[in-house]
Parts: sequence; structure tokens; C-alpha cells
Amino acid sequence: MTESKTATSVEIVEVGARDGLQNEPVSFSTEDKLELIARAMDAGVRRLEVASFVHPKLVPQMADAEAVVAGLPDRDDITYIGLVLNKRGYFRAAETKVDEVGCVVCATDTFGQKNQGQTIEDGIQVSKEIVELARRDGKTAQVTISAAFGCPFEGEVPETRVVEIAKRVAEAGPREIAIADTVGLGVPSRVTDIVGAVREAVGDIPLRAHFHNTRNTGIANAWAALEAGVVTLDSSMGGLGGCPFAPKATGNIATEDLLYMLDRSGVRTGVDLAQYIAAAGWLEERLGRRPPAMVSQAGGFPTGELAA
Amino acid sequence: MTESKTATSVEIVEVGARDGLQNEPVSFSTEDKLELIARAMDAGVRRLEVASFVHPKLVPQMADAEAVVAGLPDRDDITYIGLVLNKRGYFRAAETKVDEVGCVVCATDTFGQKNQGQTIEDGIQVSKEIVELARRDGKTAQVTISAAFGCPFEGEVPETRVVEIAKRVAEAGPREIAIADTVGLGVPSRVTDIVGAVREAVGDIPLRAHFHNTRNTGIANAWAALEAGVVTLDSSMGGLGGCPFAPKATGNIATEDLLYMLDRSGVRTGVDLAQYIAAAGWLEERLGRRPPAMVSQAGGFPTGELAA
Repeated sequence: MTESKTATSVEIVEVGARDGLQNEPVSFSTEDKLELIARAMDAGVRRLEVASFVHPKLVPQMADAEAVVAGLPDRDDITYIGLVLNKRGYFRAAETKVDEVGCVVCATDTFGQKNQGQTIEDGIQVSKEIVELARRDGKTAQVTISAAFGCPFEGEVPETRVVEIAKRVAEAGPREIAIADTVGLGVPSRVTDIVGAVREAVGDIPLRAHFHNTRNTGIANAWAALEAGVVTLDSSMGGLGGCPFAPKATGNIATEDLLYMLDRSGVRTGVDLAQYIAAAGWLEERLGRRPPAMVSQAGGFPTGELAA
Repeated sequence: MTESKTATSVEIVEVGARDGLQNEPVSFSTEDKLELIARAMDAGVRRLEVASFVHPKLVPQMADAEAVVAGLPDRDDITYIGLVLNKRGYFRAAETKVDEVGCVVCATDTFGQKNQGQTIEDGIQVSKEIVELARRDGKTAQVTISAAFGCPFEGEVPETRVVEIAKRVAEAGPREIAIADTVGLGVPSRVTDIVGAVREAVGDIPLRAHFHNTRNTGIANAWAALEAGVVTLDSSMGGLGGCPFAPKATGNIATEDLLYMLDRSGVRTGVDLAQYIAAAGWLEERLGRRPPAMVSQAGGFPTGELAA
């Protein structure tokens, strides 16, 4: 359907069970998390962020990380990702059956210190060490550069800094580098520029992108990222997610909304939109409110059966 | 800030007082409408859709069209637009001080007959006649092709049909042709294709685009439209608006959200985002609920003053 230069297929990473839930005030039981993950896998998702190995005092919703991973079905065709912000977290994750660890380098010192007690330089060093450890342990590892499109504390983040961080972490050989708009400040023109510059800087390391829809630009940014060479996109069921430093922010881009755009653009994902829409009622019941995703409210593209 | 091929400036048409309100269940008084319009003009908007000259039984919220227009300040630098769907509506508008009339051709027979009692062919004929009448009366006129990206009844709308309608109405010499995603079904790849094809078909007639954010693609579509050569975008204060045939749909793309994206992309509009954000509280009070715009909730780009 599209004649653009955009890829004809894209991989979706469902992050609802981790980034989606971590700031959610309603507590999700281990069983609820496993059901969210199971519903995403039933719909066709093959790569998921399932837990964060952070201190339970910092993120109470992630206190059952080990239990969630233990409850996951053994599936060779699925990649389960655990988020780790430091080596202690890595060693916890390494004891579980997660296939992959995700590290994070914040693109500003202020955000990094508040979010994970690390400067940019700390984040680079720790991430590189974790990538090495994972290689030794037979797990894959990737690195996300967070707050890459702006920082709630410092404001502007120079493109050159994001590129420099990407180059540094690339030296460790992660399976992938991700560019994240953690607080939803990005716009498509910036995505085009930054993703393009990182693309040039890191050789053949695949790029992922992670957007929040805080200022209604998330889907636009996802499209710009695809056009700029990203091959994987993060999204969350229902658009779950938020940020403790942006209390009014809504969450990650919604998997349903992303799928609608991609399906209508002829970009294949292997994920079934109808099954995601069907899960919206379950999610709304668990949350006790309507999640921010819009396609699950408005419905997919009309079939034309109502024509006179 | 951008290196893309997108225009460095764009005109915004504030449609909150017409498309934004016409399906709004809360009744807005003439004074409230005039305040909405005044706030938009104070923020820098220079072209606004202010009323629809339809039968008050069909759209009760527009029953005071003449009173609204009579209450507008006399401003040579502002273009006031009245929507007219037939000649009766045109003759009403012609008696007022609106500067411009907007006509509509629905891109499917079913939607056109349900929305305004006109087939595609009827819509083309009526619009061409109104453009001629307006020329005679010294008013400008433009034509919008509605449901151009999909129809709630018929589903798919062929690109070739949109192009054909555009060519036909272009013969009458409207000041502008608009492509409208009336029910929020569009995606950026389709916008790129359809706007590009219409652009080629209508010579130097300027193009406007009109998007609804029903499926969260509105801002992405606006960016794609700019990249494809549109020079004017419709949007509504707060993201007001809906469609009687899509009850769960949210409204037009929000002027605030559009401004955030454009400002951050270095695209000039002459409209001040901060004044729009400041109007959000007033609008929320009038509506009795939070409007769908997101930037007025999340705030603009951080200044960096909070940095450690």
C-alpha cells in the first residue's frame, strides 16, 4: 500500500509487562503479568520485555521479577528480555531464563543520576561491562540510550552526544542499540536526524526505537524512525506506561495503535491487531480505567459491509 | 532544527468553533464561541472556521451561526470561514461578513448521502456552483474532499477517485483544495501517496489537509502531509471534535499538539503555543471534562531550569 522507502516488515517488542506497568499505580499480580504476556504472544509477538531487575523498593511493581520469569512458558521462538540497570541487576537476571538483558544509558547526567544513580559515563561503563558478562553467559544484550530526544531536567540533548554514546556502547558489541524518547519529547524531524546519525555511526548494529505518546507525537515518531532505518519498535498493550518524573504523561505508544498504522501501510509485523483489540477489555478491567490506546476504542479499518 | 524537505512555515486554520463544536454534547453559547475564536486570534491564528450554515435541526450547536459571525471583530488581517454544504447555506453565509466559504465533497456516495444528502457527483456540482457564486460576490471559496482516507460505511476509498474529484473541483478555481480524513482512518503512507497524487493533479492550487486523531495517527498524518506539499493544516483548540458516525472518536488534531511538533521541528506558524496551553483551563471548564489535547496536560519542551 505504501510507495515510501520504509521497511516492509518491522519487529515489535511488547514492553507492557515492564515499562508499561512499572509506574502503574494499580498493582498487577504475577498471574496478571503472565496473562498480559501470554495474550501478546498469542497475538503473534515474539520478543517481549517481561521484567526489570531493579530494587523492589524503587519499583514495587517489579518486585516479582523472578517469579514472572519463572512462570513464563519455555518457548524457543520467543525472546524474553529483562531490564538491568547495574551489575547487581544483571546477576539476578542471569540466574533466570531470560534470553536477553537490556541495559540503559541515560543521555543526560541529571536524568541518569535521578533515574538510576549513574552519570552518562557511568551508564556507558556499566552497560559495556554487562554486554561482556552476557556474552560470557550465553545471553544476548542490548543497550538503550534513554532521554535521547530531551530531558525533563536539562531540556535539550545534543544529537552529537547521542551519537557519541552510541559509538561508545557499540564497541562492546551489543546485539542492538535503541534510541528512547523516555519522557515523550521527540518530534519526527528530530527522529529522522538522530536515528539517521546513529545509523551512520554504529555500522551494522540493528537499531530499535522506543517512544512515549506524552505529547501525541509517538506514532509520528515511530513512522519517522522506520523511515530512518529502525527495524524494531517498542510498544505496550493499551498504551500502558508512564514516567515518575512526568506525572501527567501517558505511556508508551500503544501496540494496537502502532499495528493499525503499520497494517494500513503494508508493513508486516506478524502480530494480529484484532487479538490486541480483543485484549483491551481484559486490560481495562485490570486497570480499573480505560487505557490510552485509541484503536481499541475506535475499532480497526471499516470493512465496508455497512455500505448502502 | 529539521533537515527534511518539509516547508519551513505552515498556516494553521483553527476549526474548533465549527468542526470542533458541531458534535459536542455540551452546548456552547454564542459568547463562548466568540471567546474561543478570540483566544485563538490572540495566540496568533489568522484564519478560522467560525460557523456552519446548515439547518439548525441537523446541527443544533451551529444554530447561532449568524449571531457568531455578527459578533466577530472586524479585522482585515483575519480570514473568517463559514462552512456551506449547499446553495441555501451559501446564500445565508453570503449575507454575513464571513470572508470565505468552505464547501465539501464526500469521497463516497454513502457517506455523502448520510452526511449531507449528496452523492459524489452532487457534491462536485454543488461545490463548483458555490465557488462561482462566491467569486461573483467577492468572497473566496475552497473545497474539502471529505472521507478521503476511508469511509465508515464503504471502507476503502481509491486514491484515483480522490484525484478525480480534486481535478473536477479544480476546474471551478477554488482558492484551495483540502483533503480530509473526516473519520480518522488515515496513516502517513496513505497521506504521502494521496496528497502527492492530488498535488500533481491540481497544478498550483494550494492544498490544505484536515485530520482527526481517532486512531492516534493524526499528528503523524499532519507531518506526512507537510512533507508531501500541504501548506495549510486544520486543527482545533484542545482537540475538540468528533463525528456522529464514530461515537467513540476523539476530535480534530489538537492545535496545541500540532504546534508542539511544528515548533520543535523549526516550522513557523506565527501561533504561540504557550497561549494555547493557557487556554486549556478555560476550555476544560466550559466542556466539563478534560479535552483530548495532550501538550496542554504534559506541558511544552522543558527549559532545563531544573538541571542539577
